[in-house]
Amino acid sequence: MSRLALIAGAGGLPAELAAELEAAPLVCALDGFAPEGLAVERAFRIERLAPFMRQLADDGVTAVVFAGAMQRPRLDPALFDRETAALVPRMMGMMQGGDDALLRGVIALFEEYDLPVRGLAELAPRLLAPEGVLGERGPTAAESADAERGVAILEALAPVDVGQGCVVCAGQCLGIEALYGTDALLADVARNRPLRQPPSGGVFVKRAKRGQDLRIDLPTIGPDTITAAATAGLTGLCLQAGQVVILQRETVLAQAAWAGLALWALP
Amino acid sequence: MSRLALIAGAGGLPAELAAELEAAPLVCALDGFAPEGLAVERAFRIERLAPFMRQLADDGVTAVVFAGAMQRPRLDPALFDRETAALVPRMMGMMQGGDDALLRGVIALFEEYDLPVRGLAELAPRLLAPEGVLGERGPTAAESADAERGVAILEALAPVDVGQGCVVCAGQCLGIEALYGTDALLADVARNRPLRQPPSGGVFVKRAKRGQDLRIDLPTIGPDTITAAATAGLTGLCLQAGQVVILQRETVLAQAAWAGLALWALP
Repeated sequence: MSRLALIAGAGGLPAELAAELEAAPLVCALDGFAPEGLAVERAFRIERLAPFMRQLADDGVTAVVFAGAMQRPRLDPALFDRETAALVPRMMGMMQGGDDALLRGVIALFEEYDLPVRGLAELAPRLLAPEGVLGERGPTAAESADAERGVAILEALAPVDVGQGCVVCAGQCLGIEALYGTDALLADVARNRPLRQPPSGGVFVKRAKRGQDLRIDLPTIGPDTITAAATAGLTGLCLQAGQVVILQRETVLAQAAWAGLALWALP
Repeated sequence: MSRLALIAGAGGLPAELAAELEAAPLVCALDGFAPEGLAVERAFRIERLAPFMRQLADDGVTAVVFAGAMQRPRLDPALFDRETAALVPRMMGMMQGGDDALLRGVIALFEEYDLPVRGLAELAPRLLAPEGVLGERGPTAAESADAERGVAILEALAPVDVGQGCVVCAGQCLGIEALYGTDALLADVARNRPLRQPPSGGVFVKRAKRGQDLRIDLPTIGPDTITAAATAGLTGLCLQAGQVVILQRETVLAQAAWAGLALWALP
């Protein structure tokens, strides 16, 4: 028997992914955490990660998929088993790097325990933005130009492992996504807009970081992103085709149409 | 007779510059704008820029210096003279580019009217950050590492003409300065800090954009920058030596000492 384990984090993505899979996955989550709309079959603790991974193999799990954001948990030194304790120096090193280093470390760890990590793009490609116009209207020439400038800004940042998103209006960069994520960026732009011309317009560009391992932590938008973009006075959202998850797609499309936002994906 | 014209924008810099000059400059400002601590001798309008530049030459002005921020003004088509009107297509092109393109365009325009633009670094080098430790303490090893990462992030952004500053804490980028400037960046970081670890610490790195024409719009810090950095939980400010203006230096040093901030400048 071969089975897929779904390590479920926060938000609606784990349940949307489970619904896309042909066979029900083994749902796992951090101890004490209840993923939205899914019953947890295996709760685990980081302090007992090694026995958890061994147990998965014993359960017939042959691959793992991660979905949903996970906070870096606080660790209780008293709870470590001997095998996981031996992994601690390595885990500490991973946690002190950027998000990418952490995720690459987690993938390597699972693979050492014969649990290959599979990606959302492979398992549930329908959750990702397809290339082309997604909403009711495509971009204007000005929105296209702003999106191109946004892509150039994010590509410039890729070598320093920063930036899954940025906001551009009339060629000017209004903000770049950093540690605090998309919602914070769009809220910052909304608050700062009165400071400088132009007071509205512009495009939010959301892409994977070049070189980002897409098996964990795909860039994601959802209904809240549309609301936040509209609140920031933006008129368009440009995604990266095949690399950005759209949560609650029907709602996203309806909201974008209602707000008059162009929604499209470039390669 | 040869004289320097000072085109005065907002903030304390024009008066600090005037005080550093050997001979009193001819103070010019946009019509309706009163620079801090300086009496305006020539008010001008963008719509009548050509006659203004010709008048400067007639007044014996042989060079121009810009100091202080200037907003992109709204233009009244009825006020243009014929010569300035002929410059409009070019001015529109300049205004639609980034700040750098605009400033390069302005410099080129003045120089065509035999008014070479001189830089603050040449006229008043004492206003710029000298290399080394400026405050009461130098950076810790962690602050130095964060500053180096900040420098790398800003250098990555230079080719796309974005970023005079960024905030880094424990290797993670908390924010990047975009259109809204330093104060907005530091206020955004202060507001967003509760969202993610670590809740305090980190360094604000302030540099000129590589390739930026330093004759106009030098990056500038002042007492407000120190207050804003401390409010954002930061413990250090790393400037670029010879490229960043420090307004009200005595106050800045006293505030940094009071707040315990490391203040230093790298090449």
